[in-house]
Amino acid sequence: MKVQTLKGFRDFLPSQAKKRQYVIDTLKPIFTSFGFEPLETPVLEYEELLLGKYGDEGDKLMYRFTDNGERRVAMRYDQTVPLARVVAQYGSTSSPQDQNFLPMPFKRYQVQPVWRAENTQRGRFREFVQCDIDTVGVDTPLSDAEVISAVARSYQALGFQNFKVLLNDRATFETLPIKAITIIDKLKKIGPERVKEELRNINVDDAMLDEITNKQPTARLTDVMRLAAELGVSESAMQFEPTLARGLDYYTGVIIEIEDAKYSVGSLGGGGRYDNLIGLFAGKQIPAVGFAFGFDRMIEAMDEQKLFPTDVTQSSTKILVTIFNKNLLAQSLEAASQLRDAGIATEIYLSETVPLDKQLKYANQKAIPYVVIIGEDEVKEKKVTLKNLATRDQQRLTLQSVIQKLS
Amino acid sequence: MKVQTLKGFRDFLPSQAKKRQYVIDTLKPIFTSFGFEPLETPVLEYEELLLGKYGDEGDKLMYRFTDNGERRVAMRYDQTVPLARVVAQYGSTSSPQDQNFLPMPFKRYQVQPVWRAENTQRGRFREFVQCDIDTVGVDTPLSDAEVISAVARSYQALGFQNFKVLLNDRATFETLPIKAITIIDKLKKIGPERVKEELRNINVDDAMLDEITNKQPTARLTDVMRLAAELGVSESAMQFEPTLARGLDYYTGVIIEIEDAKYSVGSLGGGGRYDNLIGLFAGKQIPAVGFAFGFDRMIEAMDEQKLFPTDVTQSSTKILVTIFNKNLLAQSLEAASQLRDAGIATEIYLSETVPLDKQLKYANQKAIPYVVIIGEDEVKEKKVTLKNLATRDQQRLTLQSVIQKLS
Repeated sequence: MKVQTLKGFRDFLPSQAKKRQYVIDTLKPIFTSFGFEPLETPVLEYEELLLGKYGDEGDKLMYRFTDNGERRVAMRYDQTVPLARVVAQYGSTSSPQDQNFLPMPFKRYQVQPVWRAENTQRGRFREFVQCDIDTVGVDTPLSDAEVISAVARSYQALGFQNFKVLLNDRATFETLPIKAITIIDKLKKIGPERVKEELRNINVDDAMLDEITNKQPTARLTDVMRLAAELGVSESAMQFEPTLARGLDYYTGVIIEIEDAKYSVGSLGGGGRYDNLIGLFAGKQIPAVGFAFGFDRMIEAMDEQKLFPTDVTQSSTKILVTIFNKNLLAQSLEAASQLRDAGIATEIYLSETVPLDKQLKYANQKAIPYVVIIGEDEVKEKKVTLKNLATRDQQRLTLQSVIQKLS
Repeated sequence: MKVQTLKGFRDFLPSQAKKRQYVIDTLKPIFTSFGFEPLETPVLEYEELLLGKYGDEGDKLMYRFTDNGERRVAMRYDQTVPLARVVAQYGSTSSPQDQNFLPMPFKRYQVQPVWRAENTQRGRFREFVQCDIDTVGVDTPLSDAEVISAVARSYQALGFQNFKVLLNDRATFETLPIKAITIIDKLKKIGPERVKEELRNINVDDAMLDEITNKQPTARLTDVMRLAAELGVSESAMQFEPTLARGLDYYTGVIIEIEDAKYSVGSLGGGGRYDNLIGLFAGKQIPAVGFAFGFDRMIEAMDEQKLFPTDVTQSSTKILVTIFNKNLLAQSLEAASQLRDAGIATEIYLSETVPLDKQLKYANQKAIPYVVIIGEDEVKEKKVTLKNLATRDQQRLTLQSVIQKLS
């Protein structure tokens, strides 16, 4: 039997899971501070709901099957089509008293895994978390600016110091065929000479590139950037990028991409306005603007830039309370309980009959920074010995002093 | 096209999603305070890994299919078999420097959905979250007691006041056939007379019931209960229940169940020692003790007992900053930004051209408790108007006073 994960699927052991959780726990309060609220949708949907929504490639990569009740079902492929379903399914309820009432604009965040049977040789995963914020039901420049502000605050909160919010407006490309836009989008990757060559190959005048490069922001984008600045986004963090394109069959207005000077693999996230998708199931146009955080890349970049705090990269447990001997067990248990009451993450060594040096070895393996030792002398003095495992310093202190020292 | 979820699958709109998140956010720090660390495993596993591990019923209810690469795969059915895989797959790495090193005992928590094609008419869901803590690799009474302590602290932290930790030891039933145990387990549901009748039907002396009912705790359980008390679990919250059985083909030692006096639907969670399962793939016995929180029932019980704080049941947003007119937009945006800087969740009305009464209606629909209004007079006075939508009180204050008032 293969005791292993499927190709493209990952286990997240504690060291990785803690980092992922830290990113989510940092982002959620930012989202909430703007009024974005959580939404969760099922992993499985009716297949017909997802099929054809992501192009031929999407249909091919989608996990689809017949369930035990002979229904054709598909696994979540992204979070936007399910959002469109939710808006169609509940959006018509107009009474705020209804539990399913969706106020408009509907501002939601969603952090759930999606599945795509990608070619894993390209370093892609078949199961990965998407982390999205979207504002549905409003098409104002202010709603675009708010997403930019929420995004900038998010990367700041995670500690990114060198990110730029690249911005463009789909209208910049108004006169161009989609094929030319796709080529121009590769400018950073392949350089201007090859872009021009590829443009010539599809019979587009290569002067187009220079023309685009020299464009000024549209009136709408100028508005959006001013509003974002008024919402606190530093002007130096925003950059108009006339050749920024992204998947243009999808976006209809402002386009956003986050670039980090210290991270070369690619953008850390992207989004924009897409006014034609959310109304898909509702049968009418519903404007929307959103942003997708590049979750895996952000974690990689944060690792490289050492942006995780030490209680994430090291042990969450601050103290291991050792068990000196069986007769003093009650004292150790009570100390552990009091440390926890004081909000200090505390492990107790889980056996009464293991020599102290093996207990210290466990603390070292888990990189727990402190151990507490309670022997007969400590009990007599109503104190405990606190040992710092890194410096090997040890002190005899009251438990109260230990709490003060480590809180 | 059916614009709906599959039977047995649920959307969690913000009002529900916030409650779910609150429960998880409350439990995680408790788990961490005991040294339990997060683990995440994939939704899909090789089918052969899960098949046959949950009995015939499990194989029948499992979501299984052939993936795009002709592999037989299955969706996560619980979190324990994947834990057994993780322990077998990484447990042999002995260097703490290895990123995949699992220290033993391995204490993990896991909060992920699982899928079972249940008959939904019984009010069961086909997708539901499991929330488990487990200690793997140690068989001491202390490790049993620690789980009980973590569990008691968890229900306390959620605000449950009337829960009891029912406890038993599998050894209580040593001499009984499994069938008789299953019958005795139904005592609370069907009463002693019907239990006796069913015992007679399988040719077990019905005096057995009284014999079991009058049993004293085993030496092991007495130990565990004393240690749990030393770890801070109130003795009145623990109750020896000699007829408590749970799925006995699985458990091998202490059995735990949480009962709440105010919640009649069933137990709020359960667990115990199971020393024969985790070693399944590792090919050796690996002791383990754990607990599964009954996530959906807990949320139902908390709803009934009104245990959710108001910022979970009401709007997370504290203030809606309205837009008095287009010329004063910048002042409103700056105020919103400063309120967010001060940690106050603040929405801005996302359009510049909507009359104030419609803006207030939006605040009412979302149950946002306060609105800030910045008109020409306010700008002159360098103040804002703060309006309490419930009391209709309004005051002209500096933004600093608003921050002090609402922080």
